[in-house]
Amino acid sequence: MQNALVEKLLDNERRAVARSISIVETSNSDSVQLLKKIFPKIGSAYRVGITGPPGAGKSTITNQLTKYYRKQNKKVGIIAVDPTSPFTGGALLGDRVRMTEIGNDEGVFIRSMATRGSLGGLSKRAVDAADVLDAAGYDYILLETVGVGQSELDIASAADTTIVVLVPESGDAVQAMKAGLMEIADFFVMNKSDRPGSEQAIASLQTILMMREHDEKSWMFNIIKTIAPENIGIVEIADEIGRHREYLTSNDLLLKRREQKTKVRIKEIVENKIKSELWNESGEILLNSSLVKVVLGTSSPYDIAEKIVENFKRNEL
Amino acid sequence: MQNALVEKLLDNERRAVARSISIVETSNSDSVQLLKKIFPKIGSAYRVGITGPPGAGKSTITNQLTKYYRKQNKKVGIIAVDPTSPFTGGALLGDRVRMTEIGNDEGVFIRSMATRGSLGGLSKRAVDAADVLDAAGYDYILLETVGVGQSELDIASAADTTIVVLVPESGDAVQAMKAGLMEIADFFVMNKSDRPGSEQAIASLQTILMMREHDEKSWMFNIIKTIAPENIGIVEIADEIGRHREYLTSNDLLLKRREQKTKVRIKEIVENKIKSELWNESGEILLNSSLVKVVLGTSSPYDIAEKIVENFKRNEL
Repeated sequence: MQNALVEKLLDNERRAVARSISIVETSNSDSVQLLKKIFPKIGSAYRVGITGPPGAGKSTITNQLTKYYRKQNKKVGIIAVDPTSPFTGGALLGDRVRMTEIGNDEGVFIRSMATRGSLGGLSKRAVDAADVLDAAGYDYILLETVGVGQSELDIASAADTTIVVLVPESGDAVQAMKAGLMEIADFFVMNKSDRPGSEQAIASLQTILMMREHDEKSWMFNIIKTIAPENIGIVEIADEIGRHREYLTSNDLLLKRREQKTKVRIKEIVENKIKSELWNESGEILLNSSLVKVVLGTSSPYDIAEKIVENFKRNEL
Repeated sequence: MQNALVEKLLDNERRAVARSISIVETSNSDSVQLLKKIFPKIGSAYRVGITGPPGAGKSTITNQLTKYYRKQNKKVGIIAVDPTSPFTGGALLGDRVRMTEIGNDEGVFIRSMATRGSLGGLSKRAVDAADVLDAAGYDYILLETVGVGQSELDIASAADTTIVVLVPESGDAVQAMKAGLMEIADFFVMNKSDRPGSEQAIASLQTILMMREHDEKSWMFNIIKTIAPENIGIVEIADEIGRHREYLTSNDLLLKRREQKTKVRIKEIVENKIKSELWNESGEILLNSSLVKVVLGTSSPYDIAEKIVENFKRNEL
């Protein structure tokens, strides 16, 4: 049955794409089976990560960039990792705007993913979904995430080119640095660059960039100025993505980079697999029955942990 | 040799405390040995987590609260998890101010921890260090972290009472909600409450709090207004911590809560232990030698991951 689905997916049938992503999102054995089947067909899509602090305008930039690529007749897949409210569980308003603007285009596929309350690692699911879109033949896959939290950073940095979007508000560059955004950026976008303080923000970002060590041959980090709602600077973003892609390809770095990302990914798959085996029903029971010993002071968390690891290795969980 | 150290630690000898924390920070076998030895002696300290967005004034509040507790003749241990620059690797300026203000007080022990580039899980190390301070006889342990990233949230929520510090800047409450801060707060502090927009910020926070489900008996979330540098509202924070402690104790929740936190902690210890065994030298070699197969398309990341897990369980790594 999955074979028929895979065939339709490879033909880029919309419903098959949606169904396949739903399967990989469950992260169960069907998911692994499907991913193994499509694996030989992936690798031709170019993956772009778009991240930055909340309110920087990442969705608008993603939308505008999508419209630009559509004019070049390129197919675009979007994976948007949304911060959902812990109270309502709902996605953000931005999604509706997005759907009316580009969602009805047959050459665009959009999937939103929640950051909370779902099984399995978020970055694992997002990268798996990107593989599905890759197999379906999308030319560009845009991975849009909020730049808070390690798993969001992991997703954005799993791309071939990673863009960090900032706004002129003071301290933004410094906070981005603290949040680890600087390390994953291939270039920066200063959005809302018509706002007061824009030039100072760019200057302070440049100062921080100059502090980075780099040799003569290494990639030069640019800062692209945009006003996304007015479509100003979007062509320049696309050009910079092209320049970075060219840089990676001509220096034999694209494959090396993908190899490094694959390494991170395999580690995550291994760790998730072990976690799910560890904390199956009997593992939870063993853990729960040991808690009282810790609280009563008769056993330390480290004694309990050692016992659980030993049991796991003896397949006794 | 460790027994002598443990004795001095239990006598709250400053150098023994510092040395013990350094040992648990390495997360090696010495660390586990030490933690097992001190384990029966912990549990009397009350742990307070202080978190919030960068620039909210967490350090100032921690310092003022420490001075308040010192006047009550309580000993205070502080674990400050600092966002360090990825470029300089240095700690923030705030630390120096802190040291001159309270660092010379014999009844105060301060330890800063970096969030980056260190071995082992950050939240594991921070909670281990809190155990050391607990064993050394500190009455209050303040765990101060920036509210970005899962491990920072884990540390703050490992406390008995968790305080989320916000400032009036618009959108703060909504962003705090998105960052998962609302779920871990036992109460809120609106710092810099003399700034414009303070009342609106409190109103919007109250609206969000009202959306939370709660029954009649449950804890009521308060919002404390402070101007930390002028020491305004600090007594009220201490009172609210006391009220929450009383609530937990009188409803038999303190032990239940600690049991739940212990569960999270044991899981983390188990997972870290397995990770370090997995990615030992031979594990890395197996992984690295498999990468080329993935990039050439002859093997999927899932095939490689399954092989690694099987080998691990057969103790072949």
